[in-house]
This record gives sequence, C-alpha cells and structure tokens, in this order.
Amino acid sequence: MKKLLFIYLALISLFVIYVYQYQNSETTNREWEEHELRGSVDETYVMVTFQTGIDYWKRALKGFEDAAEALNVSVEYRGATQYDVNEEITALEQVIAKHPAGIAVSTMDPEALNPAIDKAVEAGIPVVMFDADAPDSKAYAFIGTDNYEAGATAAHKMAELLDETGQVGIITHPYQLNHQERTDGFHATMKQEYPKMTVVDIKDGRGDQMISKDASLELISEYPDLKGIFASEANGGVGVGMAALEQNKEDSLHIISFDTDKGTLDMIEEGVISATMAQGTREMGYWSLQFLFHLQHNLVSDINGETTLPPHVDTGIKIVTEENVKDYYSIE
Amino acid sequence: MKKLLFIYLALISLFVIYVYQYQNSETTNREWEEHELRGSVDETYVMVTFQTGIDYWKRALKGFEDAAEALNVSVEYRGATQYDVNEEITALEQVIAKHPAGIAVSTMDPEALNPAIDKAVEAGIPVVMFDADAPDSKAYAFIGTDNYEAGATAAHKMAELLDETGQVGIITHPYQLNHQERTDGFHATMKQEYPKMTVVDIKDGRGDQMISKDASLELISEYPDLKGIFASEANGGVGVGMAALEQNKEDSLHIISFDTDKGTLDMIEEGVISATMAQGTREMGYWSLQFLFHLQHNLVSDINGETTLPPHVDTGIKIVTEENVKDYYSIE
Repeated sequence: MKKLLFIYLALISLFVIYVYQYQNSETTNREWEEHELRGSVDETYVMVTFQTGIDYWKRALKGFEDAAEALNVSVEYRGATQYDVNEEITALEQVIAKHPAGIAVSTMDPEALNPAIDKAVEAGIPVVMFDADAPDSKAYAFIGTDNYEAGATAAHKMAELLDETGQVGIITHPYQLNHQERTDGFHATMKQEYPKMTVVDIKDGRGDQMISKDASLELISEYPDLKGIFASEANGGVGVGMAALEQNKEDSLHIISFDTDKGTLDMIEEGVISATMAQGTREMGYWSLQFLFHLQHNLVSDINGETTLPPHVDTGIKIVTEENVKDYYSIE
Repeated sequence: MKKLLFIYLALISLFVIYVYQYQNSETTNREWEEHELRGSVDETYVMVTFQTGIDYWKRALKGFEDAAEALNVSVEYRGATQYDVNEEITALEQVIAKHPAGIAVSTMDPEALNPAIDKAVEAGIPVVMFDADAPDSKAYAFIGTDNYEAGATAAHKMAELLDETGQVGIITHPYQLNHQERTDGFHATMKQEYPKMTVVDIKDGRGDQMISKDASLELISEYPDLKGIFASEANGGVGVGMAALEQNKEDSLHIISFDTDKGTLDMIEEGVISATMAQGTREMGYWSLQFLFHLQHNLVSDINGETTLPPHVDTGIKIVTEENVKDYYSIE
C-alpha cells in the first residue's frame, strides 16, 4: 500500500510540474505572438537588383540581412546579372511567382518594371523601391538618396575646398535622372550661395572612365583657370582623376566624385580626388526590409485600411576625404 | 528501504524536471536578449511639443505609443501648454534633466530650441525632430511632411477640380517656413504644369480665421473670375470657406485646405471645402520612436561609429474629399 502511495505521490508531482511547465510555455508563446516585431523564418523577403555581382549592392544587402536577423525572417537575393532590363523583368517575374513576403527592387529603368511591380502589389505582395525609383509604379515607398540634396552637399564641399572662389566644371551622365538631379543640386547651390564661383561647363562623361577623362582634358584646356571638377558618378570621377594626373594638375585641381568603389578610394588616398559622396546603401536595405515587414504584418494601415507608410525616405550622404577614407575600405 | 527508494526516485524526478525546465527558461531568456527589437519598460521615450492640448498631436502620440508597444518600451508626453517658445525650451530642459532613452521634438521655432537639442545629443540622449524641424540642430533625423511636395499635390488636385483652366488664389502664413514651402510647391506646379491656370495673388491670412476670411473677400472682389483658393493651413481654410458662404460662392469656388481638424472636415461634409491635405501624423510618431529606439540600442552605427540613420523621412499626404471624409472624423 505504502509503496503505491509513493508511486502516486511521484506521479502527482510529475503531473503538477508538467502542468506548471506547460502553462509557462503557453505564456511564453503568447508573449511572442503579441510582440509584433517578430516574424517567422518561413517568411522570405527578396531583394531584386541589376548587375547583381557588383560590389555596390553588398552593403544594401547587408542592411537587408541585418534587419531580417532582428525581425527573425529570411531573405533572398535575386536579379539580372547583366545591365539588361529584360533580364531584370524576368528575374522579378520569377520572384513574384513564388509569392514571397515582400520584395525590395532597385530598377535600372524608371518605367520598364512598372507592370511587374504593379502585378506584385495587386497580388498582395508588398513592394518597396530602393536606390533607383520607379515613381509611377504602385510600390509603397522609395528609400534612397535625395540626389538633388547630394549634389548640393557636393557643392558646399567644393566651396569649402576652393575658399568659395573660382571656376568649376561638371562631368555627368545627362540621360539618367539621378545624375541630372545631382548636377542640378550642385549647379543651383553654386549659383544661389556662392557668388564668386562659376560653373563654366557641364560635359557628358557617359559613365565611362575614358570618355570622362577626355571630357576633362577638354575642360582643362578650355578653362586654364579651372579650380575644380564635380563628377556625378564613380567611373567619371576616376576618369577626371586620370586627366588631372596626365596634366600634373592633381595638386591644383580639386575633384569631387560619387560613391566609394575601390578605384575612387585609392585616388582619395593618393590625394588625386579630394572628396567623394558616400550613399547610405546599408540603410536603404535595412529600412526596405523594415517597411516590407510592416506591410506584411499590417502594422501600417489606417482605420480605413489605407496604407500609411512614409512614401519617401532620404538615406543621406556622408563626405569621404583623406581623413576618413580608411574606414570605407573595410565596409563591405 | 523501499520507501526511501521511492522518495529518492520522486526527488530525482523532481530535480531532473527542474533542471530541464531551468534550461528551457534559459533558452527563452537568451532568445529575448538576442532579439534586438525589444526594449525594456524602464526605457522611457518622451515626445515634446507645443500647445500640447490641441487635437493635432493626438495621432502623432498614437503612433509613438503604437511603436512603444511593439518594442516593449515606455513613453511620456511633455511640452509647452501655450504657443510660447520659452515654455517649450523649459519643458525640453526638464525632460533632458531626467536623461530619458530618447526625445522626439516638434519645435515651434526652427532655431530657438537648438541649444537645448544640442545639449541633449551631447549628453548621449538620442533626439529626432518630427513635424516641424530644427535643421541646424544636432538632432539625428527629421520625420514629417515634405511641404513643397504637399503644395504640389494640392496644385494637382486643384487642376483636376478646375479641368486645368482658370484663376486661383492662395491664402497663406508668409513668415512660417512650412507655409512658404507649401505655397512655393503649389505655385511652381501651377506655373510648370498647367499653362491655362494662373495664380493671381498670394495673400497673408496669418493663420487666423477672420483675417483669412477678409483676405478671401478681397480676393473674390478683385478677381470676379476666381475659380479656386488654396489655403496653406486649417484656420485659413475655414476663413476662406466663411467668405465663400457669405458671397454665395460655395458652389462656384473650389477651396483646398490643409489638415483635418473638425471645422475643416465639417466644411468638406457641407460641400464648402472641396478637399484638404491630411498629413501622416501617426507615421511621424511611429517612426520617430523607431528611430530613437534604433539610436538607443546602437542599431544604426557604421563601422567607424558614425550614425547612419536616414536624415529625412517624408511621411506623405493623403487627399480628403467628401468621399472619404467620414474616415477622418474617427481618427484620433
């Protein structure tokens, strides 16, 4: 009898502890569910770009992954391997077919991807644009550089380098919207805020090192008093640097470029390029994923069901010079 | 002996279960810690405004509270009860003295709060601006309406209402930056995109109903063909509505106003005001808290320790008309 009593006691204890523990785990589960900023690993968010292999996207993807880790969701990276708009459309269509939890797209054409983007949104897949916008698409938000402001920032830096006096030129890519905006921001700021400075010419470098170098050589010979050149993208900046080196102008000519690829950083270290504009690419990726997560979990709809996500996020610009160039080599 | 054996068995079982359970709770705790987007309730974030009692802030505070709930942190609401810049500075100083986890500030003056804001940032307290910016302060970001864009949106709506033809006027507050920007956006869009429309005059309504009403009566008598008036803020809009009613012009004159206070919504219901621009005030509060949390938890610093938060977030504009006005009464 007494043996049995002990067995009963042991079993009852076990049962009580089991129930207690079960309740505990229930509480824990309930807390996870209530806590809104945690997804599940089955939830896959996809980043879609073009020229997928270039270094430029690494930091955007890093931000995308960092946010995914914080939110406990999964990510994938897809896109066009080449600079080919049809390839990017196909890649996006393939991603849509899998009905992921959300898609962040950087488009190489402000119009061509719209039908695919709109199809995704209509199918209930959250889409945001980053870095390069498709303004007339149904994507919920754009997260990227305010290029006009970035041009203005470059102009202020140029004015500082030249003590607010002298002639400057611009090498740009006149058929791409973001480059037009950078050029406009630079030009307008010079005109409005620095009366002793003049933008003498704007030349087309076509995003190519050699063409930009030749355009710079022309500028230098046409304007012997030229004190500075602003290049609106990285290849152009390196081309300008090559022209300055060829003419032994690397000390007298101040060059401001854009982005932080290795060629540009090397020329900053060598003192050929004075400064370059670093974009907030990690932030583009980070907040893209945050926004997609908020859309997927209905954390951003108003009482009438309308989405109320900020439509435009400027991820800002940092100025890189000889002083802080070391930091930018290590950023991947 | 056998009795004792059972007691031992029972005790051993209890111990095993205890250890198992303890390990389980360890795992749970570790998961909470690893999960970066969860704070503690001791962490207090403060929203600071002016005229703290007005309805306008309710939605911003709602967004601030929603984000706090999602992130498991606490919030407080402080500020100047009056439209008094010294009172707001004092309120901000008192908040700083308590060293909270972060402060979101909407300033009634783009300069006057800068010393206090900078003091907070230097003391290691994250600060972001929302709704009304202090652009030269050390605050990390501004989250609010892009007022130039909002004016442009109002211009497009006006063009739609008037079939892109006719004379329009503007009633504004010419000494406040956000109103200047709204006016500029409206004016420039009309000029650039609607060649058959003319902005005939811009009058000062001083943010006051009666002064705006009188200014509108002048506009109406000076320009008998006037087809529309854009008011850059809510009191002005109601004043324009009163003038239209007095002149029996409520059917022939299209009025576009700003914000969604009860007086404006009532005039939309009555068909006196055609449309008003609703700001994303909930989003200002929501993303302000998110940004402060990210600053507090060092989730936004780059390899070199520099903060990399998006410096500027446009929370967008929604157009409210007779069709959707009902939804906006219920928003608090």
